[in-house]
Amino acid sequence: MLGLMMERPLLLSGLLEHAASVHGDREIVSYPADEPVYRGDYGKTAARSRRLANAMRGLGVHAGDRVATLACSTHRHLEIFYAAAGIGAICHTINPRLHAEQIAFIAAQAEDVLVFADAAFVVQAEAAVRGGQVRAVVQLDGGIAGPAVVPAANGGSVPLLPYEALLAGQADVLSWPEFDENTAAGLCYTSGTTGKPRGVLYSHRSQILHAFAVALPDVAGISEADSVLPAAPMFHVQSWGIPYAATLAGARLVLPGPRLHGAALAEVIAAEGVTIALGVPTLWVGLIRYLRSTGQRLPTLRRVIVGGAACPPSMITAFQQEFGIEVRHAWGMTEMSPLGTIATPCAKHGGLPEEARTRLQAKQGRPVFGVEIRIEDEAGRPVPHDGRSIGEVKVRGPWVCSGYYRCDEPGTHDAEGWFATGDLGTIDEDGFVHITDRRKDLIKFAGEWISSIEVESLAMENPAVMQAAAIGIPDEKWGEKLLLLVVPSPGSTMREDELLALCRARLAKWSVPTRIICVASLPTSATGKVQKNVLRAQYARCTPAVPLG
Amino acid sequence: MLGLMMERPLLLSGLLEHAASVHGDREIVSYPADEPVYRGDYGKTAARSRRLANAMRGLGVHAGDRVATLACSTHRHLEIFYAAAGIGAICHTINPRLHAEQIAFIAAQAEDVLVFADAAFVVQAEAAVRGGQVRAVVQLDGGIAGPAVVPAANGGSVPLLPYEALLAGQADVLSWPEFDENTAAGLCYTSGTTGKPRGVLYSHRSQILHAFAVALPDVAGISEADSVLPAAPMFHVQSWGIPYAATLAGARLVLPGPRLHGAALAEVIAAEGVTIALGVPTLWVGLIRYLRSTGQRLPTLRRVIVGGAACPPSMITAFQQEFGIEVRHAWGMTEMSPLGTIATPCAKHGGLPEEARTRLQAKQGRPVFGVEIRIEDEAGRPVPHDGRSIGEVKVRGPWVCSGYYRCDEPGTHDAEGWFATGDLGTIDEDGFVHITDRRKDLIKFAGEWISSIEVESLAMENPAVMQAAAIGIPDEKWGEKLLLLVVPSPGSTMREDELLALCRARLAKWSVPTRIICVASLPTSATGKVQKNVLRAQYARCTPAVPLG
Repeated sequence: MLGLMMERPLLLSGLLEHAASVHGDREIVSYPADEPVYRGDYGKTAARSRRLANAMRGLGVHAGDRVATLACSTHRHLEIFYAAAGIGAICHTINPRLHAEQIAFIAAQAEDVLVFADAAFVVQAEAAVRGGQVRAVVQLDGGIAGPAVVPAANGGSVPLLPYEALLAGQADVLSWPEFDENTAAGLCYTSGTTGKPRGVLYSHRSQILHAFAVALPDVAGISEADSVLPAAPMFHVQSWGIPYAATLAGARLVLPGPRLHGAALAEVIAAEGVTIALGVPTLWVGLIRYLRSTGQRLPTLRRVIVGGAACPPSMITAFQQEFGIEVRHAWGMTEMSPLGTIATPCAKHGGLPEEARTRLQAKQGRPVFGVEIRIEDEAGRPVPHDGRSIGEVKVRGPWVCSGYYRCDEPGTHDAEGWFATGDLGTIDEDGFVHITDRRKDLIKFAGEWISSIEVESLAMENPAVMQAAAIGIPDEKWGEKLLLLVVPSPGSTMREDELLALCRARLAKWSVPTRIICVASLPTSATGKVQKNVLRAQYARCTPAVPLG
Repeated sequence: MLGLMMERPLLLSGLLEHAASVHGDREIVSYPADEPVYRGDYGKTAARSRRLANAMRGLGVHAGDRVATLACSTHRHLEIFYAAAGIGAICHTINPRLHAEQIAFIAAQAEDVLVFADAAFVVQAEAAVRGGQVRAVVQLDGGIAGPAVVPAANGGSVPLLPYEALLAGQADVLSWPEFDENTAAGLCYTSGTTGKPRGVLYSHRSQILHAFAVALPDVAGISEADSVLPAAPMFHVQSWGIPYAATLAGARLVLPGPRLHGAALAEVIAAEGVTIALGVPTLWVGLIRYLRSTGQRLPTLRRVIVGGAACPPSMITAFQQEFGIEVRHAWGMTEMSPLGTIATPCAKHGGLPEEARTRLQAKQGRPVFGVEIRIEDEAGRPVPHDGRSIGEVKVRGPWVCSGYYRCDEPGTHDAEGWFATGDLGTIDEDGFVHITDRRKDLIKFAGEWISSIEVESLAMENPAVMQAAAIGIPDEKWGEKLLLLVVPSPGSTMREDELLALCRARLAKWSVPTRIICVASLPTSATGKVQKNVLRAQYARCTPAVPLG
């Protein structure tokens, strides 16, 4: 028997219009490149999104069409999210820092019909246009110099249109269509460090359920009174869904544009009274370094959510002990919208000594309701939840992908529909997941598995180390040898032997690096993750003259 | 185009098993009548619910069947919620304080096949059995004296089974079935003060979306670290959905059984370190009176959610100023699962003087995402959101009823599917709804509308007044005259002329009561609401000898 409740679909247009109606004057702040700070609100965002939706329709965008973005996190990018999804089209966020061929490949596979690009990324838009189906490029900011066209593949060209002029010609009235909540709303390709990039297709339903979960007190804990800064860019899993969660709560939303390095982040956080900020560890390395070097403090910032890569315990200690900012370490992935788990300590952990508490917080945490998690051994058998036994993490839930867009490759889903994440980890008695490594980043030395995350986290306890990457390099005798690459903190004199002594004192014998190399920087993806595949290729033939291990 | 997200239904069994897996040892405390305090947890609740589900199946309960409860808020009642819904059956909570005929009518219309009853309500269970379809009564607590049968309508009888013995014989293993999330999960009849009681049929989807909304920071704000006391009984819109929201957050859940008067509430809150409590104003009148008379304070209690009837401003002041407890005033109804709005002040209200802030908090508040609200005049035209223009409140959303169970009466839904609440109110520029009255409680004196809520709230500012009810009584000349019934605070000497002077000083001329009468108590429904229909019948012929007005 079915219940007698209204069949109201969960739609992103409903989310936007709710905020416009109930939180209409709550501010949305944006820092576009080379422009003054923009101060709008939910009411204005809804009105401008309606204009944009009318403009998109005028440009021939229909329900189901993909429109691409190559842009930083700004109010205009947010308007594209809502306008495209609102008319049943799909906002396809492309990472502008991908190679031109990857952009062309992705835009071609997605069959994007429009591209919205920051002035800084019009070159990348050209790559997307070469993909084939793009009918026009809309430039989000700045002036258009020279011919207002972008060259296309066939020797022709497509028009280059200025965003604000496009909006100016439209009415801000629109009755959003109603449709199935399972309709696609967003498309995001995984970074594709292994094999080709693959598209994850979010639905209205998945985005809204995810927004509810993100806003919960024990997750991001977003209230109307908060000022939320998503420092994860909008092309990185749609800023982790934070813009939607902020809209749901009616929180003040601060979109940082390209201002993501330490000094700029500190400036925006201080100027806007940000209370909650979210981003990858490398961003926070920059912020912490900046705060230390300047002595600046961020009294309004209550909470930092760290995700996208493992948060080293030293970062948790720095935020909490030095700066009085709570850290919540979260885990997820593009295929999970991205939220999977968050390491919010439980009531019973209230009395934990600081060190044990930090150790707990350095785990990836517990699944929020909506995400089911299991760990399995290689034979697919469940691994005990004892905090020690390692297995591959599998997930299931309404905001987990059921497959990839137009992808016929053998799936990463098992017979029961669970998604195999490629992450290895443990689950303890309290349900805290601890990711020990990506399956592909795990190193096998003399028959023993080494967790690259464990080695990197230890290295980063040394204040002289700013960044670290542990990789396996092929070795005839041992299978793989462990190479630790470290970026020294500015002004520090890194001594490799000191670091090696630390590793020897704290790591299992087989986890001690065979060699430690100081480097000026590590190659990172557009989302700030260290590209270990690049490092592995680069150091494949690196044999230590004198083995340190 | 549909998204590529997993088709995972939102099911209450999934909610329970999530909590069992992630918050397994988080406590569920229950105070059954005449029994020691029960201390279980989510793990144990899941195990016992599985046992109970097996027992229900053994008793012939199938998917779609209704099982009734006549019980206080206890762990066993919670197990029935989860067990029935988990197997696709429907938990039908019957208010034990209804008249026997109403219970028989409701049980007959619902065709309940089982009745679960507290020992104290076995008499009411007999009424349900007379309804016709009940195959057995399960007694939740106490011993069974005499023959273990309950008389049935046809001169026969049905067995009376002891709950714990029923569970003891069952395995705690069960693979919950998966089904459409729109499947019915709970049935609750409206109190039926006007006309026949009508059943509202909640679905798994509606309950889970509602739980997400309830747990949000600006609504109940439930985190794992909280200890939540739903003082709204489980037969009152399933304790306002709080048990589900607490399960979603993994919060400690304190079920008070019959302990709902001031002293008992204070005792439970203090003993269990309750941080959030939820209930109707009359309960809080009792608690405040108890705290004042004993000098006891409740340092752990951070927040009280007041709903079910208008919260007088004096109650907000008492909680916040005297006891340091935040009040959040909520509005909803059985047909809305029940959450509609909540009066959580906005960031911009931070600087409001205390009195203005209290006035704001005394409004019913803003809709949570998921609830759409409009107010309309009698011709169905939208009324401006100016905080002054009054209209009927209409609502729409995934946890608002689309109709009543087996009810062919002309609906309370308009052509566009909006549900007409029967409440009259205003909406201000910030979206705060203010309910001025129930349509049927509004009084028309000499062509002017009088808000009974306004008069009652003012009366309750007088410390000598514990409860107040303003009703219209028929009058040939004026249409209706306003009668104010007041229950004096214990030990106080109520002076009617003083109260009248207060009304004259603060109310519009036509809103001043024609007569004020002191009474020992007011008739209240089982959910603690004053039964104005009873009062109107009782005082219909009450003509003031000397008109005070």
